[in-house]
Amino acid sequence: MARDRNAALIVVGNEILSGKVVDTNSTFLAQQLRVLGVSLTRVLVIPDEVGTIAEAVRTIAPTVDFLFTSGGVGPTHDDVTIAGVAQGLGRKVVRDPALEKMLRDFFGQDVNDAKLKMAEVVEGTELLFEGDVRFPTMLVRNIYVLPGIPEIFREKFNAMRQRFAADPFHLRVIYSREMESTLAAFLNRTLESFPELLLGSYPKLNNPEYRVRITLESKDALYLQRAFEALMQMLPPGAVVRIE
Amino acid sequence: MARDRNAALIVVGNEILSGKVVDTNSTFLAQQLRVLGVSLTRVLVIPDEVGTIAEAVRTIAPTVDFLFTSGGVGPTHDDVTIAGVAQGLGRKVVRDPALEKMLRDFFGQDVNDAKLKMAEVVEGTELLFEGDVRFPTMLVRNIYVLPGIPEIFREKFNAMRQRFAADPFHLRVIYSREMESTLAAFLNRTLESFPELLLGSYPKLNNPEYRVRITLESKDALYLQRAFEALMQMLPPGAVVRIE
Repeated sequence: MARDRNAALIVVGNEILSGKVVDTNSTFLAQQLRVLGVSLTRVLVIPDEVGTIAEAVRTIAPTVDFLFTSGGVGPTHDDVTIAGVAQGLGRKVVRDPALEKMLRDFFGQDVNDAKLKMAEVVEGTELLFEGDVRFPTMLVRNIYVLPGIPEIFREKFNAMRQRFAADPFHLRVIYSREMESTLAAFLNRTLESFPELLLGSYPKLNNPEYRVRITLESKDALYLQRAFEALMQMLPPGAVVRIE
Repeated sequence: MARDRNAALIVVGNEILSGKVVDTNSTFLAQQLRVLGVSLTRVLVIPDEVGTIAEAVRTIAPTVDFLFTSGGVGPTHDDVTIAGVAQGLGRKVVRDPALEKMLRDFFGQDVNDAKLKMAEVVEGTELLFEGDVRFPTMLVRNIYVLPGIPEIFREKFNAMRQRFAADPFHLRVIYSREMESTLAAFLNRTLESFPELLLGSYPKLNNPEYRVRITLESKDALYLQRAFEALMQMLPPGAVVRIE
């Protein structure tokens, strides 16, 4: 049996919902998890509200191996992810002594309540000092709390990436000039013979080379190859422009 | 009282969750809704699964004025948005006679079951023939079912946009060289005096001009101006690089 693992992402971000900032963390995470063989089952973008975050954590965390959060950590009033995760797990927010020491050492005389807010963690949090980022990543139960700033989000994820590795997905792609509505019957027939196949069909407008990109995926390389060959044999002559 | 309207978006897309395609519809919609004065309260990206779509529709549709769906409409096996919306509303999927006629006229002898699948709608759907796109947009209760192909998503939304207009948001922006942890106390004090203010604080790494972008928003222009002036007076000399 292939080792399956799945994950979800909660993006905490008024700035994204209000169109001020383009969320690139979800695209990055989707691509990276796929490479690692992890299925991303949902992405949820919500406002900076404790209750909304709590409800999302409560409903999503039990359904996945890994839950990532992006954003809402920092010193200001709108940084409420820690409070939201805590409420969602029914735990308290506490000040972590190791983080407090780091912050006091770093800021010296300039330390204040806002700065010390960054030492707050959900009770029971494990601090992960992986990679080159000075400030650790917070892990509580199966929840990885990551900052929203894309450079740091990426750096932290990359430092931890081997934690998440599962068996890889194998992928074949067929580019076709046929219309999707013509291909549909062949795709359905393929799925009847290969019900476990992950089969996608994506039309592209105004592309001179092809009309539809068909993706076939499985964690079982042999199964994938058999499905791929079965579909290729069904397709009418000239339907296939290119394969990958 | 300012006219408030809110909205949510459900993106149906294995191709996005698996990192094959970058979702641009959610960014487009977030920006457009903001211009129209509509608050986007959540974006949810889920797989092409009837039950998952149904649950999302059931829980989100009652909480917003407008629910948009993106993707999962078309002739193939993975186009299950209509079925999901129907299940979420406890309604049937039916074949719409007007759509069936359009498809038969268009495809002629080449019509088949897969093509006629595009005539299926949730019972009680209203067809909106706005704009230049031949195929109408489906509206059922408060749910606008839009295709995932970005060009068509945009064209359809733009054709309907005046349906959604609310009172506009007013925005002021302050760029500051101070660290966010220094600014936090001033932001908190501003919120004490102006609790209805939408106040955001966004650090930018490695930017030569500023460290933090502070956004102030309200539907009440006068309230916004008073909050903006109050915060500007509090900030230490030299803290502000630029305002918008």
